[in-house]
Amino acid sequence: MAKIVVDVMLKPEIRDPQGEAIAGACHRLGFAEVRAVRQGKRFEVEVADADVADADALAIRMTELSAELLANPVIEEFTIHGA
Amino acid sequence: MAKIVVDVMLKPEIRDPQGEAIAGACHRLGFAEVRAVRQGKRFEVEVADADVADADALAIRMTELSAELLANPVIEEFTIHGA
Repeated sequence: MAKIVVDVMLKPEIRDPQGEAIAGACHRLGFAEVRAVRQGKRFEVEVADADVADADALAIRMTELSAELLANPVIEEFTIHGA
Repeated sequence: MAKIVVDVMLKPEIRDPQGEAIAGACHRLGFAEVRAVRQGKRFEVEVADADVADADALAIRMTELSAELLANPVIEEFTIHGA
């Protein structure tokens, strides 16, 4: 069983009001050193090794999955890595 | 400016209905090799270097921030690492 991690973040040019609200809360709680916060999503995907030919095939399938289901490529970007 | 990443995931013993729904969608879309999905949050925190004494002090502050604001320690666990 392989565990793949997909990190999904808003593209840098897209505003992130949720992250901005968290940065504001940091300051109110006394964490003045925090300059900015961006919030994204992290998916841990368990894949059955037996169903995938090799590491290259797995990378291609996970990229398809991320672009179709986990991320919205219009406003988000994703990175795939091992756990 | 240091960029710190905080990954927040539900504890393994806590059910994740959102992740289960995504796993179901994977199967309906033809990604039969996916066995399970867990969804969590990823925070990218930019910190002003000048406001932090050293790497140890930064790690302590980021741990406080994560436990107080970014994660709910009752049901979630977090890991902190560099970008």
